[in-house]
Amino acid sequence: MTADLQRGLEGVAVAETRLSRVDGDAGELTIAGFPLDELAPNATFEETLFALYEDRLPDADELDAFQTELAEKRHASQEAIDTVVAAADRGLPPMDAVRMGTAAASLTRDGDEDPRTDAALAVAQLPTVAAAYERARDGDDPVEPREDLSHAANYLYMLDGEEPSAERVRGLETYLNSVVDHGLNASTFTARTVVSTESDVISGVTGAVGALKGPLHGGAPGPVLDMLEDAATADDPGDVVRETLDAGERVMGFGHRVYNVRDPRAAVLQDAAESFYEGRDETAFFDAAREFEDVAVDILAEHKPDLRLETNVEFYTAVLLNGVGVPRDMFTPTFAVARAGGWTAHCLEQLEDNRLIRPRASYVGAEDREWTPVDER
Amino acid sequence: MTADLQRGLEGVAVAETRLSRVDGDAGELTIAGFPLDELAPNATFEETLFALYEDRLPDADELDAFQTELAEKRHASQEAIDTVVAAADRGLPPMDAVRMGTAAASLTRDGDEDPRTDAALAVAQLPTVAAAYERARDGDDPVEPREDLSHAANYLYMLDGEEPSAERVRGLETYLNSVVDHGLNASTFTARTVVSTESDVISGVTGAVGALKGPLHGGAPGPVLDMLEDAATADDPGDVVRETLDAGERVMGFGHRVYNVRDPRAAVLQDAAESFYEGRDETAFFDAAREFEDVAVDILAEHKPDLRLETNVEFYTAVLLNGVGVPRDMFTPTFAVARAGGWTAHCLEQLEDNRLIRPRASYVGAEDREWTPVDER
Repeated sequence: MTADLQRGLEGVAVAETRLSRVDGDAGELTIAGFPLDELAPNATFEETLFALYEDRLPDADELDAFQTELAEKRHASQEAIDTVVAAADRGLPPMDAVRMGTAAASLTRDGDEDPRTDAALAVAQLPTVAAAYERARDGDDPVEPREDLSHAANYLYMLDGEEPSAERVRGLETYLNSVVDHGLNASTFTARTVVSTESDVISGVTGAVGALKGPLHGGAPGPVLDMLEDAATADDPGDVVRETLDAGERVMGFGHRVYNVRDPRAAVLQDAAESFYEGRDETAFFDAAREFEDVAVDILAEHKPDLRLETNVEFYTAVLLNGVGVPRDMFTPTFAVARAGGWTAHCLEQLEDNRLIRPRASYVGAEDREWTPVDER
Repeated sequence: MTADLQRGLEGVAVAETRLSRVDGDAGELTIAGFPLDELAPNATFEETLFALYEDRLPDADELDAFQTELAEKRHASQEAIDTVVAAADRGLPPMDAVRMGTAAASLTRDGDEDPRTDAALAVAQLPTVAAAYERARDGDDPVEPREDLSHAANYLYMLDGEEPSAERVRGLETYLNSVVDHGLNASTFTARTVVSTESDVISGVTGAVGALKGPLHGGAPGPVLDMLEDAATADDPGDVVRETLDAGERVMGFGHRVYNVRDPRAAVLQDAAESFYEGRDETAFFDAAREFEDVAVDILAEHKPDLRLETNVEFYTAVLLNGVGVPRDMFTPTFAVARAGGWTAHCLEQLEDNRLIRPRASYVGAEDREWTPVDER
């Protein structure tokens, strides 16, 4: 039995998908048929989402209708807001709040369950509950969503109550597009497994949020930023890397289970960050990050010559989101805001041609135990 | 790529477990090393849960401490209660409410995240939110949990506000024990996948609730009861079976993907139902169900001679839970009340020796699409 145990399901193909293609050896990522660098810096998040759902780009009328559909669904129920505010008040981590808020999204469902409608509801409300949590943690009231803003612009608006600049919105959209989907990672696979029972899409997304919460998946762009700030004040940025390695710890922002070369998302996010900081005439932080990358890659190569550790998606996520103005402990919720697009698209794809996902376990426990009442134990 | 696609993961062993062994050919089920008929009719639910967590039965002091631990964690937050009441008010299905209430269980977490504590929280609060939903749907206020009652007794108490008889509690406990765990079904696998990212146990259980909601998994004990009532008023109970088959529909309560023989849980639940109805001197409904089973199995064998369709777990679940006094549309939430034991035990087992569960997808989509701005589409 144990011989054919496949604990991590590595390399096991569980689904066919037209949503994204990850080529770990070549370092290539395709989203809805577009090479990442073709789509991410150009599309609005709504265009990317439409491309995932419909396998083509929308024309102007379709895009307009889709933006309206999402915008109208942004308003979370009072109960969902109360729950995430309570999570903030009690000091729970942000992803606990996002899980609660997402689970409650069906409270605003209008009419019967429908996968496509639930997909839009989940995507539309995730930023609302995430932002309400962040506001509550700072002692501020939630900011009501605005229907006249794009998905990305409205998220930034709900975080700080100010209408964001076009540059901030473009920076965030490039990020959202870059991480919207990435094959069958643990959260996306969770979403597909949930709906494979013919459950609803909000249940699928709620399960996925829970999976993304885990540090082995949701990652650590926040700690990357901490490290970059340490490096900026150090005499030699290499010291920060060496101290981390000497302490036997992982250097955050480098290496990925799937990619043997540089994560293709790193290049797109690097370009986006560079444009963003140049547009503001604030290149010092970006330049320091760029220098840190070079230094760290060299030291890591010396440290582990057989392993090629390059920057992963988290490194320039930290640089870009910090510039755009997302608070660092909201990086993982913002990842969820993006990935909700992929999760819902995978749910719809699974349901189109469904098969229940039900593996088996290999039993290694006791056999033939006999019952004894408690007073004889 | 497509050749080795394993869409349902059938027969693929993803984990080793000491929690339950399912032998579909022999029709045998082992829970924590006990043959089902040894454990289910004898143990309290707390004893079964302790056996799953600790791989042995508790002594009297341990059992007492464990009962107290669970009882103290029964009180859900006001926000969780408000959410499930809103779900009832808006006519959402019961499992949507259970998902929301479970997602919010961490609001009552006392101190830092800890897998074993979160496991107890999830198990303890699931009945509370399920019962609050049921009460709200009938226009009644929630019944506060009582700490002096057992897990099963308190659930029945919260449903109708009356302290249940020993017979009702015993009937429910035998049911809870019978379905507490069953290998790597879709919901249990969801829970393990979620925590394989090192996420928390409440996230794992929330994902599992969402999976159990699906009709391909959570099943249909409610419809079984509808069918039995139809049969009871028909001149010939066989007519109900034949009409269902003539309409091209599935006869509920018969057949299971894993078992080729009679589901071992059916026998245990049948015995429990028989004792329960005999104890009340109300054997008519039980006798009618027993007769219906015989008639249906014969007609199904004639209809599909190559397929042996026997009663599955749902058939006597419906008979037993109906007797015990669980409303029929609360059968699936009551399944969740039981299975929360298995889900949490599997989460703890996964975390003991964890490996990230991350399969891959086979890409079948477009390649090398080129970006065109919206006004050129």
